[in-house]
Amino acid sequence: MNNRITSLFGITYPIVQGGMIWNSGWELASAVSNAGGLGLIGSGSMYPDVLVDHIKKCQSATSKPFGVNVPLMYPSIEEHMENIIRHGVKIVFTSAGNPKAWTEILQKEGITVVHVVSSVKFALKSQAAGVDAIVAEGFEAGGHNGREETTTLCLIPDVANHINVPLLAAGGITTGKQMLATMILGADGVQIGSRFAATTEASSHQAFKDEIVKSNEGDTQLTLKELAPVRLIKNEFWEKVQQAYRKGATKDELQLLLGRGRAKKGMFEGDLTEGELEIGQGSALIHDIISAKEVIENLMQEFEEAKSLVKHF
Amino acid sequence: MNNRITSLFGITYPIVQGGMIWNSGWELASAVSNAGGLGLIGSGSMYPDVLVDHIKKCQSATSKPFGVNVPLMYPSIEEHMENIIRHGVKIVFTSAGNPKAWTEILQKEGITVVHVVSSVKFALKSQAAGVDAIVAEGFEAGGHNGREETTTLCLIPDVANHINVPLLAAGGITTGKQMLATMILGADGVQIGSRFAATTEASSHQAFKDEIVKSNEGDTQLTLKELAPVRLIKNEFWEKVQQAYRKGATKDELQLLLGRGRAKKGMFEGDLTEGELEIGQGSALIHDIISAKEVIENLMQEFEEAKSLVKHF
Repeated sequence: MNNRITSLFGITYPIVQGGMIWNSGWELASAVSNAGGLGLIGSGSMYPDVLVDHIKKCQSATSKPFGVNVPLMYPSIEEHMENIIRHGVKIVFTSAGNPKAWTEILQKEGITVVHVVSSVKFALKSQAAGVDAIVAEGFEAGGHNGREETTTLCLIPDVANHINVPLLAAGGITTGKQMLATMILGADGVQIGSRFAATTEASSHQAFKDEIVKSNEGDTQLTLKELAPVRLIKNEFWEKVQQAYRKGATKDELQLLLGRGRAKKGMFEGDLTEGELEIGQGSALIHDIISAKEVIENLMQEFEEAKSLVKHF
Repeated sequence: MNNRITSLFGITYPIVQGGMIWNSGWELASAVSNAGGLGLIGSGSMYPDVLVDHIKKCQSATSKPFGVNVPLMYPSIEEHMENIIRHGVKIVFTSAGNPKAWTEILQKEGITVVHVVSSVKFALKSQAAGVDAIVAEGFEAGGHNGREETTTLCLIPDVANHINVPLLAAGGITTGKQMLATMILGADGVQIGSRFAATTEASSHQAFKDEIVKSNEGDTQLTLKELAPVRLIKNEFWEKVQQAYRKGATKDELQLLLGRGRAKKGMFEGDLTEGELEIGQGSALIHDIISAKEVIENLMQEFEEAKSLVKHF
């Protein structure tokens, strides 16, 4: 397979593993890259020295291209970016912020820069900022998400109509059929989160992985929109948030209820009742914990099978 | 094209026009059926005698199959169903209620029954109730919608994995590429609303049709979830609802604010500020008001073009 995304990154399949906090360390990223996709280290949950450690280990574990995802609201972002440049990372995905902030600085260092957006408006801003590619992520995605609530089915064709740079579809994609569907809509490839969270190499807690496998259609919701919209599994913590809403909680009260460290508690420490369990709607289609390599093999097999079915429509 | 949906209804293309209140009278339904799709009269906004008039006019205007959509919460539902049976309607789509209520009664009269759902759970209930086909409608759909908020991209493959009866995808579908995408996900055909609301034959007000054409990505939202979730264009009435939320409005206060007749006011009378403007996220991809026949021709042309692109992936 050879298209704008595989060429841009120098990879075999146009499959990017989302850089998810508490899930995407060097083990997952290198396994994905070794299997022909693009692995991303999720730096949003790492202290600067932890990120450096993961970059070094990833470089030892794979000779293939890999990248780092950096949420632009990360408090010590200068330190992260300095480390990324100093340690020779070649691909950076930025998210949750202004694409102008870092694009040019990183590109001058020879780094390929991709920005994640959830709307046509920010896709256009990203293109104007000179990014090398765009990820357009729909409402069904896990974790933090946009305020427009536009779904992948509607977002991808609209973004594709408005931009010229390579486009990755994200949000709800867990199968090869969905991958083909989003490419028909105009994407050059996909960024996949949830499916890679339920792999042996993901750094998240086993209890969280098991919960992904157990979850069914309707078991997640985008909530806490007054703070920063986030898609969570409907566990006891989620239920407390709903109770707060029913009592007419203010933004401050919601912030107090959320507190700090709930994502770590849920996904990394495996506290399924009090933690935040960030996952996408695609989790309903995940029925096993397998290796990252098997994920990519399954995706590509189903993708090819789906392609051959199309002529019968 | 010959598949389970075209065979079930005796139509040329697996395209059903959603039976939208205030939009789908006999003119739209007959135009869609004459063009090779399945037109549906939207009975939810019609008094019983008005429905009878529309059925008769539709029968005069087309010799092709057409149907009636009946929301099961319609107050005079017995009268609607009696009229449907008495006047020889052969296809009924039911929505917003228990699929067991009418399926067997209608089928005994030789009527094909389809039920609209927004979750795997209700798809299974519908199949158990013996329906002839199921419409699975995602979060991006306009008008009234489910509480699960599952998007079309995630809902269709999951429902397809769980049922055996023919499946129509709905929610956000306005183009032939999206039609092909949802069929790859497991649908046998599509039900399309918004695109048919912006046609010359739709019975809605010209000002509403113009507003659909003007609307862009991010201009709709699913709101009033405490009453019955409904996707609306973000107009002044929508803004009043948001103000009420910010003040912590109770369910009763929201009901009072909504009042009665706002959907008619918005869509049928063209009051763009005080009315409810029910439309799906797909409206962002609609740029013209054309005939129902042109809609179907465009859909099928783009569908075939997209099919031929797939082999290059």
